Amino acid sequence: MSPYGKRADLIVHEQEPFNAETGRAALAEGPLTATDAFYVRGHGRVPEIDPAAWRLRVDGLVERRLDLSLATLREAFREREEIATLQCAGNRRAGLMAVRDIPGEAPWGPGATGTARWTGVALADVLAAAGPLEEGAHVGFVGADVCSEVAPAETFGGSIPIDKASRPEVLLAWGMNGEPLSPVHGAPVRVVVPGYIGARSVKWLERIEVRPAPWPGYFQHVAYRLLPEDGTPGPGAGMPLGLVALNADVLSPADGDTVPAGPVEVRGYAFAGGERHVARVDVSLDGGSGWAQAELLEDLGRWAWRHWRITVDLQPGEHEILVRAWDSSAATQPEDEASLWNPKGYVNNARPSIRVRAVP
Amino acid sequence: MSPYGKRADLIVHEQEPFNAETGRAALAEGPLTATDAFYVRGHGRVPEIDPAAWRLRVDGLVERRLDLSLATLREAFREREEIATLQCAGNRRAGLMAVRDIPGEAPWGPGATGTARWTGVALADVLAAAGPLEEGAHVGFVGADVCSEVAPAETFGGSIPIDKASRPEVLLAWGMNGEPLSPVHGAPVRVVVPGYIGARSVKWLERIEVRPAPWPGYFQHVAYRLLPEDGTPGPGAGMPLGLVALNADVLSPADGDTVPAGPVEVRGYAFAGGERHVARVDVSLDGGSGWAQAELLEDLGRWAWRHWRITVDLQPGEHEILVRAWDSSAATQPEDEASLWNPKGYVNNARPSIRVRAVP
Repeated sequence: MSPYGKRADLIVHEQEPFNAETGRAALAEGPLTATDAFYVRGHGRVPEIDPAAWRLRVDGLVERRLDLSLATLREAFREREEIATLQCAGNRRAGLMAVRDIPGEAPWGPGATGTARWTGVALADVLAAAGPLEEGAHVGFVGADVCSEVAPAETFGGSIPIDKASRPEVLLAWGMNGEPLSPVHGAPVRVVVPGYIGARSVKWLERIEVRPAPWPGYFQHVAYRLLPEDGTPGPGAGMPLGLVALNADVLSPADGDTVPAGPVEVRGYAFAGGERHVARVDVSLDGGSGWAQAELLEDLGRWAWRHWRITVDLQPGEHEILVRAWDSSAATQPEDEASLWNPKGYVNNARPSIRVRAVP
Repeated sequence: MSPYGKRADLIVHEQEPFNAETGRAALAEGPLTATDAFYVRGHGRVPEIDPAAWRLRVDGLVERRLDLSLATLREAFREREEIATLQCAGNRRAGLMAVRDIPGEAPWGPGATGTARWTGVALADVLAAAGPLEEGAHVGFVGADVCSEVAPAETFGGSIPIDKASRPEVLLAWGMNGEPLSPVHGAPVRVVVPGYIGARSVKWLERIEVRPAPWPGYFQHVAYRLLPEDGTPGPGAGMPLGLVALNADVLSPADGDTVPAGPVEVRGYAFAGGERHVARVDVSLDGGSGWAQAELLEDLGRWAWRHWRITVDLQPGEHEILVRAWDSSAATQPEDEASLWNPKGYVNNARPSIRVRAVP
């Protein structure tokens, strides 16, 4: 058993802070990711918080500051549930590292993502109780986790535009897949921002601040920004990440597998991010000249990825299986992974491909 | 002078129905497109409507049907203004036709797009007066133009989700760039749906219908859908278009130009579509290995494209200037135009490039 109640088949990138991704086989089990298989991206030691002592402060540009216990949060506001995919901005970084190394960053494969059923209250309802002032354009979140990768150490934080914060799908969640949130996933309460990079779904939430400007802390003003290839991380350098870019990967077979020639089922996921949905997934066996459409599997709603599958007929020999997803704007993924390389290794959303060998 | 008060430098694809695009040089004049240079995509003869006799009906799934004169529309609701880019789903089709011909479709270059200042009332305010019922999930628009490319001929129409229809940026517009809407652009009143394909900005509006499902007419259920490469147009075939996909093109110099060696200014546009904005535009002189960032010019707000410029230093000889835009999800454009080919030639959003010859 891995730490934090996780299955042994997680791929652990770092023990402290704990960082681990879901293996392809576990992701392929279905569109809802089991909690004990769900990825963890942490920047500090997992805080141990006594739920009975926990308070949530809401302040900044509000008419009325709030200071709420967990009991009040659960009693005062309507409980809501959302199925939402979370995806780390570093998902599939390994593909970029194969182009050129990215020292100091974890080589995440395609498993820094997962989909769960989240239970909590709408952030919008809590904000409405506080009454955001006209000048409040962003809503910041502060966690309890202290991150020593920054000097001086700071607590994790981030913000989203108030437009998004006011939509019903953004939750202050205490439940995950029908169970109380576990410590490693942010207990007692975390934010869940569907369609946004995982870094905005701040865990171990302690404070919400309505602000005139985006979060000025390290994890939004320095990290989680897309630099040009020759850029240097620094305050305000590069474009801030937020909405997840259209992405996809193959979950089965695995890259390099040997399979029996004949019909082979290929499975994977695709995630559109933002407010978009996955409209189509295509698979090519000839390097992108001809494409066949995969079947989109169970639709878990507008905030969830789509799993897909297709049966391809493989003659004996080596094959490349190339995939591209399309979103609801009819945009598809870029081809060339190398040209997406960036110094922090974020947003690798190049078309995925695997190589397999079919044997008679 | 071209018909309909248009400048002579429009590129006319068809006289009847009138279809004409703005030339690159006219687009490059600035981020607001002059009305006499603005593209026109029509499917029928331009209706001649007496504004004094015009009525707008609002019906379908509403508590209260409306039947409004232009005077009532202007008096009863608050006037609003939006700067918004319109873009035809067939913009840049010529690039796809260079891959393989698309008979029966116009070879639009990059000028089936433009940005104007629109004046009117919010569709949301008119809908609120009618009171959409719970089952109303889409809002349909019917124009007065009769389109004989369908048999039997039908009036142009389309719909958008009620979520979008309820946002303040969707206008029923009677003004364009400070002047009354001209007949060819939909007088007396047209819809303007920022971020959506031009086909949803229905001209010569006569009727609004709140509906349980998307518009069943030809121009949404058969046309303006993205088919797979080997698909055949038909009712419900392919994915419906709606949000505009991230796109860009070069406006100056023109492809094939000869320019003096040394510093050369390159200009173009980029448009993110949907609710996204343009985050970055890159230019490469070495086929995509190295990229330099262009300067983003005047920001006309969240519904407008961005013009951009960069000065590149060209040695004497042949050069390819390659461009890619990035949106606010950190998604960039696909590379390979050929792999975007589709039977109706929609959504060519491949990275644009031009070839120029620099002479000493």
